[in-house]
Amino acid sequence: MDSVAPSKVRRVSTVRSRFGLQPNAPLDEEHQDLDHHELLWSRIRLAMREPFAEFFGTFIMVLFGDGSVAQVLLSAGLEAAPGGNGFGEYQSISWGWGLGVMLGIYVAGDSGGFLNPAITFCFCLYRKLPWRRFPIYLTAQFLGGFCAAGVIYANYVSAINSFEGAGLRTVPPSPTATAGIFCTYPQAFLTKTNQFFSEFITATLLMFVIFALKDESNRGAMGKTGAGPFFPLALFFLIFGLGACFGYETGYAINLARDFGPRLMSYAVGYGPEVWSAGDYYFWVPVVASFLGCTFGGFLYDVFIYTGPESPINTPWLGLKRIIRPGAHSPPRIKESERSSA
Amino acid sequence: MDSVAPSKVRRVSTVRSRFGLQPNAPLDEEHQDLDHHELLWSRIRLAMREPFAEFFGTFIMVLFGDGSVAQVLLSAGLEAAPGGNGFGEYQSISWGWGLGVMLGIYVAGDSGGFLNPAITFCFCLYRKLPWRRFPIYLTAQFLGGFCAAGVIYANYVSAINSFEGAGLRTVPPSPTATAGIFCTYPQAFLTKTNQFFSEFITATLLMFVIFALKDESNRGAMGKTGAGPFFPLALFFLIFGLGACFGYETGYAINLARDFGPRLMSYAVGYGPEVWSAGDYYFWVPVVASFLGCTFGGFLYDVFIYTGPESPINTPWLGLKRIIRPGAHSPPRIKESERSSA
Amino acid sequence: MDSVAPSKVRRVSTVRSRFGLQPNAPLDEEHQDLDHHELLWSRIRLAMREPFAEFFGTFIMVLFGDGSVAQVLLSAGLEAAPGGNGFGEYQSISWGWGLGVMLGIYVAGDSGGFLNPAITFCFCLYRKLPWRRFPIYLTAQFLGGFCAAGVIYANYVSAINSFEGAGLRTVPPSPTATAGIFCTYPQAFLTKTNQFFSEFITATLLMFVIFALKDESNRGAMGKTGAGPFFPLALFFLIFGLGACFGYETGYAINLARDFGPRLMSYAVGYGPEVWSAGDYYFWVPVVASFLGCTFGGFLYDVFIYTGPESPINTPWLGLKRIIRPGAHSPPRIKESERSSA
Amino acid sequence: MDSVAPSKVRRVSTVRSRFGLQPNAPLDEEHQDLDHHELLWSRIRLAMREPFAEFFGTFIMVLFGDGSVAQVLLSAGLEAAPGGNGFGEYQSISWGWGLGVMLGIYVAGDSGGFLNPAITFCFCLYRKLPWRRFPIYLTAQFLGGFCAAGVIYANYVSAINSFEGAGLRTVPPSPTATAGIFCTYPQAFLTKTNQFFSEFITATLLMFVIFALKDESNRGAMGKTGAGPFFPLALFFLIFGLGACFGYETGYAINLARDFGPRLMSYAVGYGPEVWSAGDYYFWVPVVASFLGCTFGGFLYDVFIYTGPESPINTPWLGLKRIIRPGAHSPPRIKESERSSA
Repeated sequence: MDSVAPSKVRRVSTVRSRFGLQPNAPLDEEHQDLDHHELLWSRIRLAMREPFAEFFGTFIMVLFGDGSVAQVLLSAGLEAAPGGNGFGEYQSISWGWGLGVMLGIYVAGDSGGFLNPAITFCFCLYRKLPWRRFPIYLTAQFLGGFCAAGVIYANYVSAINSFEGAGLRTVPPSPTATAGIFCTYPQAFLTKTNQFFSEFITATLLMFVIFALKDESNRGAMGKTGAGPFFPLALFFLIFGLGACFGYETGYAINLARDFGPRLMSYAVGYGPEVWSAGDYYFWVPVVASFLGCTFGGFLYDVFIYTGPESPINTPWLGLKRIIRPGAHSPPRIKESERSSA
Repeated sequence: MDSVAPSKVRRVSTVRSRFGLQPNAPLDEEHQDLDHHELLWSRIRLAMREPFAEFFGTFIMVLFGDGSVAQVLLSAGLEAAPGGNGFGEYQSISWGWGLGVMLGIYVAGDSGGFLNPAITFCFCLYRKLPWRRFPIYLTAQFLGGFCAAGVIYANYVSAINSFEGAGLRTVPPSPTATAGIFCTYPQAFLTKTNQFFSEFITATLLMFVIFALKDESNRGAMGKTGAGPFFPLALFFLIFGLGACFGYETGYAINLARDFGPRLMSYAVGYGPEVWSAGDYYFWVPVVASFLGCTFGGFLYDVFIYTGPESPINTPWLGLKRIIRPGAHSPPRIKESERSSA
Repeated sequence: MDSVAPSKVRRVSTVRSRFGLQPNAPLDEEHQDLDHHELLWSRIRLAMREPFAEFFGTFIMVLFGDGSVAQVLLSAGLEAAPGGNGFGEYQSISWGWGLGVMLGIYVAGDSGGFLNPAITFCFCLYRKLPWRRFPIYLTAQFLGGFCAAGVIYANYVSAINSFEGAGLRTVPPSPTATAGIFCTYPQAFLTKTNQFFSEFITATLLMFVIFALKDESNRGAMGKTGAGPFFPLALFFLIFGLGACFGYETGYAINLARDFGPRLMSYAVGYGPEVWSAGDYYFWVPVVASFLGCTFGGFLYDVFIYTGPESPINTPWLGLKRIIRPGAHSPPRIKESERSSA
Repeated sequence: MDSVAPSKVRRVSTVRSRFGLQPNAPLDEEHQDLDHHELLWSRIRLAMREPFAEFFGTFIMVLFGDGSVAQVLLSAGLEAAPGGNGFGEYQSISWGWGLGVMLGIYVAGDSGGFLNPAITFCFCLYRKLPWRRFPIYLTAQFLGGFCAAGVIYANYVSAINSFEGAGLRTVPPSPTATAGIFCTYPQAFLTKTNQFFSEFITATLLMFVIFALKDESNRGAMGKTGAGPFFPLALFFLIFGLGACFGYETGYAINLARDFGPRLMSYAVGYGPEVWSAGDYYFWVPVVASFLGCTFGGFLYDVFIYTGPESPINTPWLGLKRIIRPGAHSPPRIKESERSSA
């Protein structure tokens, strides 16, 4: 860091610490001591590295996801389309969300690419991601989804007008409803319990499989790796699968940033209070269920499969102790370092 | 293992040996001597490592597979769906089973990820997997399928009610039959021979290709690897292919855990004795055919392609000797070890 | 090879040489000197290693390919199917052929996995694969396709009966024609020139891209590899693409083993002489066009991109000399060996 | 290069320098000093290495892309097709363009595989690709698209005749329009602003994600790689996604070579001046929007995520200085080399 004034470096670290991030931003070695880190903007970028990553990762994910819903929904049955039956079908939406997550993870590499507050939450709870990072990650993810929904609306506004009628904006079960482009609405035949269970089980599945894919101690079909470099691709299949298997009843929202953010945007652009009241005030279900479901999914994985020391499950009293006395688990970790240094 | 009391370790090994598992559970080196292995639950997890892996691997597989059938079948032709024609099509089911197997293999890495008793059987027969493991693996796989079917039923029960009518549960050829969500039913025009042949040839194909993908001595397009890290992805294509090419007549069950387990669950939740009698008591066909077909597929591969020493095919009298005197083949293996140590 | 009698080894080599194969079969080092190579059958397997590989690779490919056509064609519009519209659609066929080729390549690893006489031909012509191997490879590939078509027929015979009517077997343009399951038939509006051009351009594309994917000197997006371990996956996309872009007019046969072999089988099982006369004796077009097209595709690649010494294009007079005097090109190759030994 | 006359080598370098290419063509080490580099044609090939690569890469891309549109559009609803509903659907087109780009990148490995003038432009602007290469790359890409459209027309001409009527060639919104096979036409309800915005946002997304996938300093889910060897596969998903999410309004042209080239060809073969006037002279929108959008996308990525020294964003005044005095940024680069040599 010869060429960068220590004082400036210190200021970057201070800002980062305030957000609960590591003092030193994740930075490619070859880029360590370049002159431009002296520039104001480069320092801002270093300070906000992970939040920026999560923002754009979620932004890309929702842009593709909501975009695919918009295209399929607005062009349904269009005879002028090549093939004479609209620009896509339900499956296109599974593609859109699946590859949106995959590409979002590539974009958000620096931050870990959670793209979902519930998943960040579980990594704090089960994998020792510092709790103080949670708020800034959540904010970034929420804003990413919120802005992406805005871009999709701007892009498809005239198509929406020609579909619903100029200025009309309706919410399911209206036959010409377009609110479903932005966030999920449950099927009419579902009770609140059904709604919740469907979102809960989907979120459980999501977290359980992600922990498996990220578990390097799970000797997969390729020796010790988990999914390794196949992780983003495997996540495409995971999300595609959730859409193909659990998309009917509640639309597999399982993500505050993907559902609540765009919902707020759809409210802002004039879909009216029905975005909240629809499905008997369904809007809170994906939010709550995603956190509870992911927590349960992570719990299942750590109880039955995970052998690492990070998980509170692998401590006396399933880590309840740790909640009471956070320091309680540090000794063994010190022992490890001693071992490795020995 | 300094920090773990030898006595406790011994007890774990004893339990594992009783199940026919190796005395030492497959465990990541870095996780070898962590304190938590002293905890009761961690020891149980070590003792049951492979069964847990097979259970959850099969659970994930069937959850996605049956889930995709449920969604496509229950939402068929639904105009309220984005795209105006239901939440998926037949192909979505090929996706569901294909990625279910792929993700199941990632989850069940520790055990080898067989997810199918017939495949475990063939690895015992042709690749020297200890026979005594077969019962515990089969049990875990069966329970995985059974439980997953239960979760799918719980998730889609209200959708089933709105599809069949509250409380009604019918089996093909009933026009509103939903039993096909859980297990396979043959086309009406098939004779019992046709049914059997279709399942048999599909199972043969399954085992033959899996042996090819796992054969590291088969110099593939990438030098000596078989499919290597591409194995789970290749299996997605394999299962997708079986669904796209052999799914019409009998639904490519080819797996006791995937067909018999969920069938029992569907019986338990009230689909009536028809789940057994349908298709002229078809239910036993996938069970028997999967074992015979996989055995034949493994036989074909070892006879025409495999050059390794594990296979009984590569012994005098195609290994019939070995069946008579299990010890018969050990000498050459000792010789190998001598060679390598020389 | 201590434990194997030299005489027996010699006999294996003799047989292999007679087929134009290298005297020593491609064999995994770890499997080099195992006892079972003394056994008669193991020796036969070594002698016939590549032919067996090509046979089963092509067998798998056609089994999936023809199987997917059979399922889609025979179940078209079936309302009893989950989703209410048959067991697949045109795209399922692109999947079937694409993954059939991918898995066939994994199966036929030992031989190089050509699965197509025209491709073997081009590797002899442009990449110095010994010409004397061509006949045995062609035979194995042809038989693989022929047998696979037989298995598909046996599997779907009762479905065909219920589709065409018992015992009826017709060829396009008959409305209930099922001959298209086994081999390709051109659209009615095509002239013979159109037919030929369509097959020719498709075969050109096939060979051109395969050479690119196999060209390790083509610094791809991943440094020097060509497609490397992604080759089988890339070929899935290539074949899928040919089906999605050039499948309408003549059905992208581009392969003697995939078209002529199954056509002969369909004739054998009673589809009548129309299998030959249909489309104004179209049957010879895919055969001839595949060889000419692949040759042209390989020519294009070597002329404009390939820099290696194997190609006759990279010799004086574009290798015409070599055709006149086969020995003409050896000197430079000796020089290379000198260099490397220097 | 012992065996090649220096004079000839010099001439190759001269030609290459004239095109703004590095004096030495990218060439596999093992192919460095082969005799055939003395041959006239081999030298031409070395001189034109990257242009040839871009030409054929774009050629392959458009061949698959336009081919898929042709097949889906011309066979729409055809009952004689297997499955009874044409040879593909809208999704097939997403497949066609996605895998066309993927395979085109494998083919064009030597040049970097841009396949799009707007992307080449951004690599010159943000990644120090020499500006003088831009014209030759653009020419090669344009010709690749132009020629591919010609081949597609030749292949499908009789199908077009039987679809539109012999000799008839019309442009949307004509009900039998086939001009959409070659280039994009906007939906009628779009204002010029809508058209532009849709193309702009799509191009922005394209460039942003490509920079992420190519950014080796973006610690992705696989450690420090960006997409690494998964790049071509990831691009399949990216292009597929653009087609599934932004294909409805303007057809995601986002590429001069893919839209303007084929448009000119369609004009040449007789689609009339409407190819230019359609959509209120829409033809220039994809051209301009692709450059502006990609520039903006690259700008976003470098401002918020990229930390490397190549980008002018990471220089004082966001590189405006560099535009004024091109030499201004060289010192730091010298410093780097010193460091590495230190």
